[in-house]
Amino acid sequence: MTAEADAALGAAATSLLGDRRLIIATNRGPVTFASAADGSLRTRRGSGGLVTALGQVGRHVPITWIAAAMSEGDRRAAADPKLLRLAAGDDAAIRLRFASVERPVYEQAYNVIANPFLWFLQHQMWNLSERPVIDAAIIRAWERGYVALNEAFAAAVLAQTRSDRRPRIMLHDYHLYTAAEAIRRVRPGAVLSHFTHIPWPPSSIWQNIAPTIREAIARGLLGNDVVGFQTERYAHNFMRMIASFVPDATVDYEEWTIRRRRRITHVRHYPISIDVEATRRIAGSRAARRRADQLLGGTRNQVIVRVDRLEPSKNILRGFLAYEALLQRHPRLRGRISFLAFLVPSRTSLREYGDYGRKVQNAVDLINARFGQSGWRPVQLFYENDYAQALAGLSIADVILVNPLIDGMNLVAKEAVIVSERDAALVLSETAGAFDQMADGALAVAPADVVGTADALATALAMPVEERRRRLAKLRRGVEREDITWWLRRQLEDLVELTG
Amino acid sequence: MTAEADAALGAAATSLLGDRRLIIATNRGPVTFASAADGSLRTRRGSGGLVTALGQVGRHVPITWIAAAMSEGDRRAAADPKLLRLAAGDDAAIRLRFASVERPVYEQAYNVIANPFLWFLQHQMWNLSERPVIDAAIIRAWERGYVALNEAFAAAVLAQTRSDRRPRIMLHDYHLYTAAEAIRRVRPGAVLSHFTHIPWPPSSIWQNIAPTIREAIARGLLGNDVVGFQTERYAHNFMRMIASFVPDATVDYEEWTIRRRRRITHVRHYPISIDVEATRRIAGSRAARRRADQLLGGTRNQVIVRVDRLEPSKNILRGFLAYEALLQRHPRLRGRISFLAFLVPSRTSLREYGDYGRKVQNAVDLINARFGQSGWRPVQLFYENDYAQALAGLSIADVILVNPLIDGMNLVAKEAVIVSERDAALVLSETAGAFDQMADGALAVAPADVVGTADALATALAMPVEERRRRLAKLRRGVEREDITWWLRRQLEDLVELTG
Repeated sequence: MTAEADAALGAAATSLLGDRRLIIATNRGPVTFASAADGSLRTRRGSGGLVTALGQVGRHVPITWIAAAMSEGDRRAAADPKLLRLAAGDDAAIRLRFASVERPVYEQAYNVIANPFLWFLQHQMWNLSERPVIDAAIIRAWERGYVALNEAFAAAVLAQTRSDRRPRIMLHDYHLYTAAEAIRRVRPGAVLSHFTHIPWPPSSIWQNIAPTIREAIARGLLGNDVVGFQTERYAHNFMRMIASFVPDATVDYEEWTIRRRRRITHVRHYPISIDVEATRRIAGSRAARRRADQLLGGTRNQVIVRVDRLEPSKNILRGFLAYEALLQRHPRLRGRISFLAFLVPSRTSLREYGDYGRKVQNAVDLINARFGQSGWRPVQLFYENDYAQALAGLSIADVILVNPLIDGMNLVAKEAVIVSERDAALVLSETAGAFDQMADGALAVAPADVVGTADALATALAMPVEERRRRLAKLRRGVEREDITWWLRRQLEDLVELTG
Repeated sequence: MTAEADAALGAAATSLLGDRRLIIATNRGPVTFASAADGSLRTRRGSGGLVTALGQVGRHVPITWIAAAMSEGDRRAAADPKLLRLAAGDDAAIRLRFASVERPVYEQAYNVIANPFLWFLQHQMWNLSERPVIDAAIIRAWERGYVALNEAFAAAVLAQTRSDRRPRIMLHDYHLYTAAEAIRRVRPGAVLSHFTHIPWPPSSIWQNIAPTIREAIARGLLGNDVVGFQTERYAHNFMRMIASFVPDATVDYEEWTIRRRRRITHVRHYPISIDVEATRRIAGSRAARRRADQLLGGTRNQVIVRVDRLEPSKNILRGFLAYEALLQRHPRLRGRISFLAFLVPSRTSLREYGDYGRKVQNAVDLINARFGQSGWRPVQLFYENDYAQALAGLSIADVILVNPLIDGMNLVAKEAVIVSERDAALVLSETAGAFDQMADGALAVAPADVVGTADALATALAMPVEERRRRLAKLRRGVEREDITWWLRRQLEDLVELTG
């Protein structure tokens, strides 16, 4: 972050907050507590762009961060002020609080509604002919789990803002759709925003589910002054959903506003991004450099790289089918290219994910058996959670394949253009949120189009280095300009402007 | 049809056509030819609302009907003027012609692209994480099958309109998306309309497939003066798709027009309907009356009825889950209600359909085993194609369950309110195209909402007869007013007004 950008962030934060604290609420906080064998509590710090970005805000204004108590350790810490102080560690400006509910309540909210239901729904990852089935268990988990957790969040927020009639509160993601309405009931003057990190599907998807649930989500979000989405299309889909399901709301598609009961909610899009400096630092670490050399292993092959959580929305299977088609149709490429796939284990307890993982492994085995030769393995699969290694892989890529079926944003595409050392060409799915910002420099693919993806890989491999360099430079400038600080600053500025 | 309605249809047809013939193109024509054992050709007449409606137009203006040669018999007849004359039978005003391509070409168009690909895509009946896979076989079938068939249709149309610079041509459905562009190339002054009978999904669905295919569909349809859809939402989705994928087109969402290369395409919606008189005639036939009595069998139980092709988009499984939940939560209903399900075999050679059928049968067996008592079977399943029996079933229903996941229109809902003799309550999915016209009298359900569907069934069963009567009367007036003749007349009138 430049000094300029830091100053702009500080100015926006101060302008919004004055001498207030910024209240942030997310399901997963910056620190979690785990009980050690001896009964003591150990802390584990989270990572990720949001934590970093808020750390930067924390340099300018103090922050109260409210997270769900996800573990028994968190629940114990929630009741112990000393532990909570400890948790902040170096970041004196960040005060941590927990929204704590009993474990079965949290399980219902998180493991019945948020992850298997809302996440799947919004990623359209269902075979609709059979799933979801909204039965009594789902309705119960919604009411007694999800809504109860959101009310616990509202209570935790309100407890932190007792004397303030206009506290500034930022809520995050699909775990917290109904909290704003609950806060607003008690504190009508609160300044509230919500940001959805995952896709917002068209109304025809919401239309499948129980009206009570979708209407509660819609009304809950209309408790905010600003609702933010990753892309313009998702923001538009949200407005269409409100028009379909909230009869007493008036949607203005030109102004991007929704009026309901004399209140206005502004609908915006803020594409999230990465912490460019932190990404560069990790990619430039000695460990990452050494790993990059090992991965290359002296090869002069062109290298295709993908980095993804191993799950169906990432469309990993069709990526390998495209690679197989590439090798079949371009025999001269055999032995001269390599595909490094860095796949991170994800929700391994879900049956769908396990099944998908096995199919991916089979596809890799088939390609290696069909095309492999002595001294050349067409695909190398790395199945582990090693961020530095993944960045090392991206840094040595000639071609980066990012072909999700759907993705709120996709930060791998942004990391890749920052760490690339070989002027990588980016093959990017149109259906990734990141495509809106990166269409100009990337090679576009439609995710189900295996033939088109194979063609894009061939084009990328054959692309003259000057064109690759020109495209990458443009993409890199974009990510440097619109980084995680920019993402956060624009939200703070809009809150000042729209609720002032 | 009243004399008035008939006169209005005649006026619209004459105004559009003058002394021209109306050219209709559909995949399946009013007659098909089958080779008998002795080598001679036998004709089989088709049924359905479209055939009837066009028969009515045929009383006012002559029609040339162009259909795909689907069978070897059709292909033989296509080359034999005598046979074609024979085919028209009583309808001297209808002239039949075939668009004939070689069998492998037709197979590619119909059994690779139209049915397993476009139909599934537009009904969103895929588990997207695995299907579709757009491989070389799909691309080949698109180019050499689907596009070739559409060119054969264009050639057949042009052959029938040699001397006419402004022939009037109506194209139908998902088999014929690219024909208009091919006709327009040769006959720029042609008056062309296309009607899509199945749903038009949001852009996020089209975004998954190969750009070459979706752009050819979009451009192909923009060869028409008017493109018609079943509902306003589908028409809107089409405009959004054009805005997303055809960069040189300008969409006017207020005027419902699309401008491209100085030509305007009007986007309209015309909800299709039934031939009310024909439906009544069949339901009132002696055979149907007798069957209705047999089905009742002297029972005084309340009867829930569904009629559907047995396939996943009809959401039959969740319908039975809802019935099971109803019996579980309302023990006093056990032994006092019956569920008659009339399921029509459909595309039985498709694996997905076969699997789905087995799951439906299992669900029925489980319910009957769990709740059945001596003298009472909770569900009776009829698996056959017997239209008169299905209408008989609808006529004796107290509650009609129509809960598709998605449906272009759904004519069962309309037939049901016409033939009901017991003031049936209609439980109708919001996602059926018919819901737009019938929301006011029906009980709405979201298709994945099993709890809500069980509640709606309970409400329907408990509804006072006066309210059922009032609702049904309103629904019936709607269907009587907006019948198949109305559907066709409005299209003819629009063509006069918009292309005049």
